[in-house]
Amino acid sequence: MQPISKARLEQFSDGVFAIAITLLALEIKVPELQNADLKNSLHELLPLIPNIATFILSFLGIAIFWVNHHQLTRNISTVSRRVVWSNMLFLLFVTLIPFATSAMAENYGNALAVVTYSFILLGSSSSFSILRFFVEKHQGNTKVKMLRSLVGPIIYTLAFISAFFSLGTTYALLIIPPLFYFLPRN
Amino acid sequence: MQPISKARLEQFSDGVFAIAITLLALEIKVPELQNADLKNSLHELLPLIPNIATFILSFLGIAIFWVNHHQLTRNISTVSRRVVWSNMLFLLFVTLIPFATSAMAENYGNALAVVTYSFILLGSSSSFSILRFFVEKHQGNTKVKMLRSLVGPIIYTLAFISAFFSLGTTYALLIIPPLFYFLPRN
Amino acid sequence: MQPISKARLEQFSDGVFAIAITLLALEIKVPELQNADLKNSLHELLPLIPNIATFILSFLGIAIFWVNHHQLTRNISTVSRRVVWSNMLFLLFVTLIPFATSAMAENYGNALAVVTYSFILLGSSSSFSILRFFVEKHQGNTKVKMLRSLVGPIIYTLAFISAFFSLGTTYALLIIPPLFYFLPRN
Amino acid sequence: MQPISKARLEQFSDGVFAIAITLLALEIKVPELQNADLKNSLHELLPLIPNIATFILSFLGIAIFWVNHHQLTRNISTVSRRVVWSNMLFLLFVTLIPFATSAMAENYGNALAVVTYSFILLGSSSSFSILRFFVEKHQGNTKVKMLRSLVGPIIYTLAFISAFFSLGTTYALLIIPPLFYFLPRN
Repeated sequence: MQPISKARLEQFSDGVFAIAITLLALEIKVPELQNADLKNSLHELLPLIPNIATFILSFLGIAIFWVNHHQLTRNISTVSRRVVWSNMLFLLFVTLIPFATSAMAENYGNALAVVTYSFILLGSSSSFSILRFFVEKHQGNTKVKMLRSLVGPIIYTLAFISAFFSLGTTYALLIIPPLFYFLPRN
Repeated sequence: MQPISKARLEQFSDGVFAIAITLLALEIKVPELQNADLKNSLHELLPLIPNIATFILSFLGIAIFWVNHHQLTRNISTVSRRVVWSNMLFLLFVTLIPFATSAMAENYGNALAVVTYSFILLGSSSSFSILRFFVEKHQGNTKVKMLRSLVGPIIYTLAFISAFFSLGTTYALLIIPPLFYFLPRN
Repeated sequence: MQPISKARLEQFSDGVFAIAITLLALEIKVPELQNADLKNSLHELLPLIPNIATFILSFLGIAIFWVNHHQLTRNISTVSRRVVWSNMLFLLFVTLIPFATSAMAENYGNALAVVTYSFILLGSSSSFSILRFFVEKHQGNTKVKMLRSLVGPIIYTLAFISAFFSLGTTYALLIIPPLFYFLPRN
Repeated sequence: MQPISKARLEQFSDGVFAIAITLLALEIKVPELQNADLKNSLHELLPLIPNIATFILSFLGIAIFWVNHHQLTRNISTVSRRVVWSNMLFLLFVTLIPFATSAMAENYGNALAVVTYSFILLGSSSSFSILRFFVEKHQGNTKVKMLRSLVGPIIYTLAFISAFFSLGTTYALLIIPPLFYFLPRN
């Protein structure tokens, strides 16, 4: 197989990122609103809070993946077959994030939904680490520093396991990766 | 973090703009049509009028955001971390516009829906002003002229507040920002 | 207003074209299938025929618009404010084509749906002619040949009017513009 | 007709690829989850297995089409009218893949759904072969090697026919093209 141009890989990936991140908001169902006095009816928006929290969590997740993806590919010019297909595996999980978001938002407090969500985020972050590994190898880096790339997969594994015991712990764990990303770095 | 190329930021943002603006039309629900005489049945389209008016309002809003976004980024070549993340905050609100449009169109005359719509447009225009501030700063502009950028946020704040007292005023206020944009400038 | 780069206008427009043309297929509702003997159950697909015919008609329509749009913008490098906003008006109608397709496909034989479809195609082709006029003017063409550009608007106007008298005529008229496009030209 | 730039053909096609591949996941309906004990409720995910298998099959299919499309167009700079319209025919079938996926996933074991799926994949792979033929001809290749391009169309034809006799055979045949793609080549 001939090497593939990075530009078109990015163009295709950016399309998938953009669609997945925009579809997240579609999952926030419009509630049936009662035309009552506004001041007394703001509580009608309360059932939307889990939806909105999950929406923001998933939006941040995809946004961080996009920034990391950009950082990863900016210094390369062609990509190998392995890079193409680990990118496809990664995108497969990214396209599932709106589904997982909807499952978790519409079934707030349901363990099965949280397990599904954790699993799909685990798949996304693990396949992104695999992608990073092949990109670095394709660039000829012999010693690939993967430590930082393991933070996501490890935390999502813990979230996945903890869902069998304590949903509160899982929700708390799911918030860590975005927070970790925004930590100041030296 | 290495500087990020403007080209890919625009590519990703254009994807989100294009999807959000195309999804607006999906929110116009196809009514159940009765196969009666056409001349006597045009009134069946009447319930679509609030939908179509809201659709045009939101379409204009996103289109103006796109033109302004293009103007903002056309003279820069790389973007800082702050620009990336204020752009993400802006896109978060843009992806919510189809949801807000649907909420307002399907609940015509409902104060809660109008409040939601005003809030999301307020978020979009405010975060765009923040984005503009960081882009100008990144370019080394010491005195950033933000006056014009405050027109949107101020009018949407007034729209948000007025929804608690008079829906008619809110609807009127929501029409001002697009009109203001098309005013001739010297 | 500074001139706008053509590249980003095309990028945004291509996004809208791609989404609108892909959403067309979403409107073909999956029917409830009975798990009977295949040879005796092919007739279950019969109710899909109007859907599929409308889908192909709209797909061809958007595809031809895309090719014409490409031809129009390929020789220019910047665009004026008028070009940007006539392009937006054109895209507004393009985003409505999936809605119109769904309305016509799900209400086969309904005059109101056919009128709506004809009206939106009339809007698309008229606004494309306006766009062509401003692009040619921006390029400094003093004598703009618009004759060919009027074929679409005229036929869709006839389709719109005929829907009040004879749906068969309307359906026949709607097929003409794509056929006309594929006619050999000297 | 003037030659069309390859860049914009790719940009439009990548948009359609990205949307079609992302919409696949939308077709996995979120089941109504019972908030029972997690360990005893994993079986609630069982009905999703045909959905997920079909999703992966279609995802692989579109991903392989994308890689092949990229390989096909990477060495050309302009495209002819025939290339544009065989590309459109190919994209028409690609946009139908989410519909076919949904039909097969929601009607597991239904012969009509499997026939529909096989037919749309047959259309995609055949029109891709036609596209390849015109691209090679446009490049001036007098002897076009089409043998490899016939593998997909032949297998999908067999799948289509076998659906009238044995669904098991059809499911098995549908898995072959992706497997064939990943075979090592000398």
